[in-house]
Amino acid sequence: MNISIIKIGGNVIDFPAKLEEFLFLFSRFPGKKILVHGGGIMATKFGESLGVMPEMVDGRRITDKETLDIVTMVYAGLINKQVVAKLQGLKQNAIGMTGADGNLIRSDKRPVKTIDYGFVGDIKEVNVDLIQMLLDKDIIPVVCAITHDKKGQLLNTNADSIASELATNLSKNHKVNLYYCFNKSGVLIDEHNDNSIIPMINEEIYAELKKENVIHSGMIPKLDNAFAALNKGVNFVWIGKAENLLLAAKGKLSGTTIEKHRYDLY
Amino acid sequence: MNISIIKIGGNVIDFPAKLEEFLFLFSRFPGKKILVHGGGIMATKFGESLGVMPEMVDGRRITDKETLDIVTMVYAGLINKQVVAKLQGLKQNAIGMTGADGNLIRSDKRPVKTIDYGFVGDIKEVNVDLIQMLLDKDIIPVVCAITHDKKGQLLNTNADSIASELATNLSKNHKVNLYYCFNKSGVLIDEHNDNSIIPMINEEIYAELKKENVIHSGMIPKLDNAFAALNKGVNFVWIGKAENLLLAAKGKLSGTTIEKHRYDLY
Repeated sequence: MNISIIKIGGNVIDFPAKLEEFLFLFSRFPGKKILVHGGGIMATKFGESLGVMPEMVDGRRITDKETLDIVTMVYAGLINKQVVAKLQGLKQNAIGMTGADGNLIRSDKRPVKTIDYGFVGDIKEVNVDLIQMLLDKDIIPVVCAITHDKKGQLLNTNADSIASELATNLSKNHKVNLYYCFNKSGVLIDEHNDNSIIPMINEEIYAELKKENVIHSGMIPKLDNAFAALNKGVNFVWIGKAENLLLAAKGKLSGTTIEKHRYDLY
Repeated sequence: MNISIIKIGGNVIDFPAKLEEFLFLFSRFPGKKILVHGGGIMATKFGESLGVMPEMVDGRRITDKETLDIVTMVYAGLINKQVVAKLQGLKQNAIGMTGADGNLIRSDKRPVKTIDYGFVGDIKEVNVDLIQMLLDKDIIPVVCAITHDKKGQLLNTNADSIASELATNLSKNHKVNLYYCFNKSGVLIDEHNDNSIIPMINEEIYAELKKENVIHSGMIPKLDNAFAALNKGVNFVWIGKAENLLLAAKGKLSGTTIEKHRYDLY
């Protein structure tokens, strides 16, 4: 089957009106689909209200015991269940999941080298059987950024990685497209001009853009991850704004599509 | 198939060592099984740490917006996912669910009469298809005390009612036993003597015990609910301590078994 995996982040989740609008668009998104979400900003705010201050190293949250409890409550509880209920209200039969549910995603606790990230998991194994069974029954998995080690421990796990691991594992038997919604309209030529979207990037274009320093810093790991997914069988990766998702589904150039081969867009 | 539905409450959930012990016993419990849990005490403690004080009327929590968020985080997030992860650690393939997930349980917000209970749901519809599919695949549903109205709203719902509605709806196609774990060893002749367990209650015995005032106050709605479940097709209802659950599964008289007909215990 064709499967679309759509990842949303804090810039959608943390604003009720935006989330509402996104879920409406998502409900209109055609075909088999999976939603992946984080919720870092909300977890940070909520933690602060409990007196737990976030500790970040290189943009990654250090997850001590208290922080793990908070992200479990916010991601798997509040956000995931509100999203599922709202989708049900839009006549979308959704089911919320962490990586522990049905043993969907097993991770290893990140080993301590120079930094102890705490209860952070790096994905080791994805079991797509249950997901396939749910999609077969037209049930939409809504997966949040928590996994487990299969030894009883929950682990905080990057939502982008969850989306891309689900995509690559499902690619073995299905045609999978991966949509990353973020806070810009796509990969931009001028990062201050949201209209300067690069509509398509393949490996040759990517090499050129890096050489010319059009793509740099934070965008490089994002695109490296996208190409890694393509190399593992994902059909295409799209990066853009959540509000342009439906245009993307209709094949209209509304963000940046990343693909291995030139002229093979949709 | 034969299905056992096991409900645990705060007296197990709120004590990590007891929960650990219970989950081990539950992992040894034979056959197809479903776990139902609340988590009221933990939600209350957690709410208080956020400055949200519980408001109770007749033992029922008034669920305002803040309280709904808290119970959603604590029941569906922290407790449900910790239980699922720990069961996975015990090689039990569990999946956590609210009534919103897969549209498992639809409720109506309780109408305001003399008391406004807030976001509290009374169960209207149970969709057992997904549960049956999961049980067929040897996946264990872990259901928490949250439902939804299918219009986008989550609702706080009594865990005993969830257990009994799941049991009666599954009884249409399956042989279902319902186990309520609570803080006493069963229905007691002398409520201060935990050894004075009444091993079996049927309708005739229940009538006598009420007449003699052996059973009174809080135990009456519990038993009325049990008989209501039996009248809707549940095979038997067991009431006892979580630590005696395995004995009960083995047919040993370790609590009170409630059944319609005399001499038809196991």
